[in-house]
Amino acid sequence: MFQYQPPLKDINFVLADMFRAADVLQQYPEFADVDHALIQQVVEEAGRFASQVLFPLNATADAKGATLENGRVVTPQGFAQAYHQFCEAGWPALACDPDYGGQGLPHTLNSVLYEMLNATNLAWTMFPGLLHGAYSCIHRYANDNIKNTYLPKIVSGEWLATMCLTEPHAGSDLGLLRTKALPNDDGSYQITGTKIFISGGDQDITDNIVHLVLARLPDAPAGSKGISLFVVPKIFPDGDRAGQHNAVTCTGLEHKMGIHGSPTCTMQFDDATGWLVGEPHRGLTAMFVMMNSARLQVGIGGLGIAETAYQNALVYANERLQSRAVMRPEHRKTEPADPIVMHPPVQRLLMTQRAWVEGSRMLAYYSALLLDGAEHHPDTAQRKAFDEQLALLTPIIKALMTDQGFAGASQALQIYGGHGYVCETGIEQYMRDVRITMIYEGTNEIQAIDLLMRKILADNGKRLGMLLDDVEQTVAETTHESLASATTTLLALTHDIRTLMPEIGQAGLDYPDLPHQIAPEVLRLVGHCVIAWLWLKAANVARTLQDKDPDFYLAKQATAQYYFTFVLPESQQLITVIKQCLANAKAGKHQNYQTVLSVQ
Amino acid sequence: MFQYQPPLKDINFVLADMFRAADVLQQYPEFADVDHALIQQVVEEAGRFASQVLFPLNATADAKGATLENGRVVTPQGFAQAYHQFCEAGWPALACDPDYGGQGLPHTLNSVLYEMLNATNLAWTMFPGLLHGAYSCIHRYANDNIKNTYLPKIVSGEWLATMCLTEPHAGSDLGLLRTKALPNDDGSYQITGTKIFISGGDQDITDNIVHLVLARLPDAPAGSKGISLFVVPKIFPDGDRAGQHNAVTCTGLEHKMGIHGSPTCTMQFDDATGWLVGEPHRGLTAMFVMMNSARLQVGIGGLGIAETAYQNALVYANERLQSRAVMRPEHRKTEPADPIVMHPPVQRLLMTQRAWVEGSRMLAYYSALLLDGAEHHPDTAQRKAFDEQLALLTPIIKALMTDQGFAGASQALQIYGGHGYVCETGIEQYMRDVRITMIYEGTNEIQAIDLLMRKILADNGKRLGMLLDDVEQTVAETTHESLASATTTLLALTHDIRTLMPEIGQAGLDYPDLPHQIAPEVLRLVGHCVIAWLWLKAANVARTLQDKDPDFYLAKQATAQYYFTFVLPESQQLITVIKQCLANAKAGKHQNYQTVLSVQ
Repeated sequence: MFQYQPPLKDINFVLADMFRAADVLQQYPEFADVDHALIQQVVEEAGRFASQVLFPLNATADAKGATLENGRVVTPQGFAQAYHQFCEAGWPALACDPDYGGQGLPHTLNSVLYEMLNATNLAWTMFPGLLHGAYSCIHRYANDNIKNTYLPKIVSGEWLATMCLTEPHAGSDLGLLRTKALPNDDGSYQITGTKIFISGGDQDITDNIVHLVLARLPDAPAGSKGISLFVVPKIFPDGDRAGQHNAVTCTGLEHKMGIHGSPTCTMQFDDATGWLVGEPHRGLTAMFVMMNSARLQVGIGGLGIAETAYQNALVYANERLQSRAVMRPEHRKTEPADPIVMHPPVQRLLMTQRAWVEGSRMLAYYSALLLDGAEHHPDTAQRKAFDEQLALLTPIIKALMTDQGFAGASQALQIYGGHGYVCETGIEQYMRDVRITMIYEGTNEIQAIDLLMRKILADNGKRLGMLLDDVEQTVAETTHESLASATTTLLALTHDIRTLMPEIGQAGLDYPDLPHQIAPEVLRLVGHCVIAWLWLKAANVARTLQDKDPDFYLAKQATAQYYFTFVLPESQQLITVIKQCLANAKAGKHQNYQTVLSVQ
Repeated sequence: MFQYQPPLKDINFVLADMFRAADVLQQYPEFADVDHALIQQVVEEAGRFASQVLFPLNATADAKGATLENGRVVTPQGFAQAYHQFCEAGWPALACDPDYGGQGLPHTLNSVLYEMLNATNLAWTMFPGLLHGAYSCIHRYANDNIKNTYLPKIVSGEWLATMCLTEPHAGSDLGLLRTKALPNDDGSYQITGTKIFISGGDQDITDNIVHLVLARLPDAPAGSKGISLFVVPKIFPDGDRAGQHNAVTCTGLEHKMGIHGSPTCTMQFDDATGWLVGEPHRGLTAMFVMMNSARLQVGIGGLGIAETAYQNALVYANERLQSRAVMRPEHRKTEPADPIVMHPPVQRLLMTQRAWVEGSRMLAYYSALLLDGAEHHPDTAQRKAFDEQLALLTPIIKALMTDQGFAGASQALQIYGGHGYVCETGIEQYMRDVRITMIYEGTNEIQAIDLLMRKILADNGKRLGMLLDDVEQTVAETTHESLASATTTLLALTHDIRTLMPEIGQAGLDYPDLPHQIAPEVLRLVGHCVIAWLWLKAANVARTLQDKDPDFYLAKQATAQYYFTFVLPESQQLITVIKQCLANAKAGKHQNYQTVLSVQ
């Protein structure tokens, strides 16, 4: 039976043992009450909700999917009820401003919550998944009138929200969008256009839906500097038309590879009424508040999926008897076959999954703590420093963790063999579902360009240098002989990164396409450096604690060693590619492949 | 619109330019008439059938799937008719013995045919896909009576065939199977048991189905040495019960991630009557004739899928306008956006697909020529040498080409972005379909163990050494300055492989699980060496021909360079992993991960 056990012990290891989350958060006045007990209570409650309420709905929702019936979206059975339970428990309000009904708790707890929601039901999680982004966006940019009308309903979860960005001809490139907004005399706007790929564009879960819509004003400059953001309610919340439907309709649903339970809507705005959020033509800036929040959460979704895939593959590998192991313990010598977990290539698949799951969790919660610090640290300079580190890590989290979510699901499926290819087993749904996370909220290729061009080269490696300083600091503090090889490797890696980034910048002056060409390698390389750093930290911490719970802490150290021996060597591939590319450029042999691709 | 253009030009490059297939084949007396014109004619005909008949059925078959209605399998609309056209054109007989109605043409042509069948309709291709294996198995092991009864019908395609191996508790480990065979007085056997995952176990395409079934005789020793092979017809072809149904029924179909058009049947044998093929208890040997043929074909299936995925991603990348390119030609300077093929990360995805597709094609046809040589070379020693080389390459072809088929489909989907996740686009079906190829006919992990343990270490690297000699021969013959870096890299790689393999064997004496642990790395490493060798050959050939068709042959050389710069560096990762593993073993730190995996 496919299952989900909240990984409470590992979550506790990362939050309490590694990052001392309670101590860190209690430094911030708003979180003075956030002690270890509170954190643990919230984590356990979240785990119960995810495993007991969401997980049982996941497979049936995949089989049936969301449907469009008489112009209204019907969500899978149980989705609405689960959502109402979610709201009653106060989950949407977790990390929101108490002025609008929020609980004012740390983002870190929200990240743990969303790891588990995604792990148990990615399709369902897409409904509340946009709430926090909408909240942040309105909270920061909208006027008081809009804030007072919408925020309490979003914070309570009474209304759900959407991001209406994509149009048929405008996906990654929002500058191409055509939806129009014409001003009315009363300060509102008439919005007209077609949006596609709108998750939860319509649903039968909440009475109202808050659409955040990008559109162009009549005097808008072309491109991305002429886009404004509007709030467009499905039902007017107040005024003359209170309770009436706005001119927004769902005209179709996509048939998709996965996340069948999440309705992916085509939305038609026909002179729908909306209100401007933020400055005219500055909509993308406002939307990016939502987008950055979404990117972190999508990365955490990759982690959640990878966790469930790993858990189940491990259970199966322990149960499935097939072939005799190379190394058989005495008591199994007469058995016809052994559990496949005894076969080394199966162990390799499982350990690779495990090293990525646990390493990604460290990165996810480390980043969540940065976000809390960026918003709540009393010192402005510290807030800014945290914010910059988070900006650097965001594309890595999004791309690396979704790539590994997909890889992990595929590795788990492989362990199931032919049985994994059968729908009833459950793992193939996870692989189909997670595939979208490599695409939405900015494809992983766009994340790579964002990282290299805007986060590394744009400030001449300043932010990256601070991260590498932290890594080297941990290396310097690691003295145990068992980690000598790991620290040597990691130090060589930070040096390589410090050397290569300016060379890439330099080569980009002659060949502007070169940095873009190797941006995917740079993302994975810096990603490995961060994950390796966190595994080194984890190994150090586990060693100091190993007498407390030897099984757990020794396994943690062994998994760290696994990462260094079997996973980190990918960095050798990445460095070789980057160096060869740079060498080609120096030799005047840089190649752009458009011409080659035009020849069949 | 999703499409398929038979890659005739590249097929011709590999067959004619690189391998001079007609000259090679005409050395064998049976193929004296197989000239270039004949090869070209067969290839073009195969391309027409695949693109015009099979391709249009693919998406609808996925949507509807094969169904079980009143105990009978109903195949998707058009499948039966396409199959009858396939038989009328004589395709099943292509590489079969003229004594049984075959055309006696080379396997090489069959490989080209199957690349294109798989490329256009993997689910459909699974029906005829088992014919040739069944043919080889019966042709080699069955008595004349069985041969005369079954072979003409299989050669003509009038009857389809299945491989009935897997049971619920016996997948990779056939030694565990329980299906029983009791001898009758007339020399036949009564077969009883349940088989699962039987592709085409029932269908409405042919009047009869030839099941090749593994079962145990009453006196069978335990394990894999007690398995016998039987031919079990669905309908008795002759004798007292001619025309009557045998006691074989399809009791269920799997719901699967992909290949929906192929019915994956649970087959119940209730005292079904069958006849022994080959010696008692030697069924696995006979079945492996079928299995090896199937493994080559599954690998070629990966190539076919990767080709179609690449083609379509390239078309889309040329059509889809999104964002302005870093390097814009003058004539596009005022356009709001450029085709995404101009963005370097998209070029990277496409070039990586292309390098693997074209490289895999070289490997596929090279191996097909080995198979023809192994069967038809007049010299016994040469036949044996070809056979051994093919045995070495078979697990590489199966694992590497299916892994890359899956990777290629996923890369293509990524280029489509959100549109790729939508069913109507077509690419997501290819990704779902191809995923099974990494599992069936022996998982890719089993291929890795087969390669390292049985094909490399078992003969102390003799076969591998011959392959590496060939590689180094090509390196020695490569003198052009533009390939200097590639030859240096490749020579270092062959040296590393020559050094590492005996070290792995040696380490395996102390730690028998160590070779199994790194077998996946060894497979990809040797795979890269072979593909790199073929790319070097291709670059040499293309350079000598470049005046004939500069666009094509220069693009070929540029793709070779792409492979060396961006793809082959994975070998650095693989070598690092293997070396670290060996170093750990030498330092007494070898780790088996079963204990770690038992700790949650």
